[in-house]
Amino acid sequence: METSKLSPSTLVLRLGHRKERDKRVTTHAALVARAFGADGIVFVGDVEKTIIEKINDVVKRWGGPFSISVVNSYKKIIEQWKKSGGIVVHLTMYGEHITESNVMQRIKREEKKILIIIGAEKVPRIIYELADYNVAIGNQPHSEIAALAVFLDHLYEGRELSKEFYNAKIRIIPSSRGKKVVKVEANDCG
Amino acid sequence: METSKLSPSTLVLRLGHRKERDKRVTTHAALVARAFGADGIVFVGDVEKTIIEKINDVVKRWGGPFSISVVNSYKKIIEQWKKSGGIVVHLTMYGEHITESNVMQRIKREEKKILIIIGAEKVPRIIYELADYNVAIGNQPHSEIAALAVFLDHLYEGRELSKEFYNAKIRIIPSSRGKKVVKVEANDCG
Repeated sequence: METSKLSPSTLVLRLGHRKERDKRVTTHAALVARAFGADGIVFVGDVEKTIIEKINDVVKRWGGPFSISVVNSYKKIIEQWKKSGGIVVHLTMYGEHITESNVMQRIKREEKKILIIIGAEKVPRIIYELADYNVAIGNQPHSEIAALAVFLDHLYEGRELSKEFYNAKIRIIPSSRGKKVVKVEANDCG
Repeated sequence: METSKLSPSTLVLRLGHRKERDKRVTTHAALVARAFGADGIVFVGDVEKTIIEKINDVVKRWGGPFSISVVNSYKKIIEQWKKSGGIVVHLTMYGEHITESNVMQRIKREEKKILIIIGAEKVPRIIYELADYNVAIGNQPHSEIAALAVFLDHLYEGRELSKEFYNAKIRIIPSSRGKKVVKVEANDCG
């Protein structure tokens, strides 16, 4: 049995988390990374344990794989990523417009694994230089959570919404009314 | 001069805001509503003034129109909406799958204005009944901010990302590197 593996593989790098203030936004970003098909998320610096516990709990109940890690330096992980043959996409309202330019075609044509950088309000200037692509999900101010979801949805062309997860304990049966949740049998890989 | 008016028109109803805890998430939801083409957002109950100020400030600088209002009862606004010929779409992970079902086609075929309900963690049971459509942006747990963005992106088929706003004071020139922001001339309606 196989999960519906998405291509190219993606990893999210979350910059600029501010303790307490960004707790829920960072949690949402991590849940979106998982639900929209990324392999994992990397946090830089000081992130509350409760965030990591919350995401691990979701992975345990709803399935994976989904990796969560914390690093001290974004420069190092970006360098390593590039050395290992990956490209870096920075989501920013100042970047190339996702639908008005051909940036998505160029990214897809690379056929390489992608490190997707999302920041909080201020992102260090050097990120714009280190990124292979600076992509704007529209040039209006909104949310890194929305930007991440829409970028992954365009990249995977909706297939990510049907991704199956391994070792899920529960699963939803879609319903036009109410909530239907079922327990998943022991050997079911969905 | 005309803005690129999107059809059908949409209004977002944000339920279950918890003071302090949801401050940033609710702000992100409102900014996504505006950036992804909704006409406005309605909050139910007690919402911090700072959230409303923040969104008004974005509208002032980046353009509108975009309405922000606060009501006491969600039932009343839903009733009024339906009476005036609109339909109600509730975004929930338990709903009909946005791409695996034909729910989006059915919604588009209605050709009616849409009230889009997004909740925080717990949404009153009755919302599932009051809604004409319960729609899941995938049946995995993630974020109402992501759900709203992806729903609007599928509804408007990407056109929302090129929406023009009236009376903007600043505008971004998309750029592959760095930040280019320009002041908008007095009579420019973009």
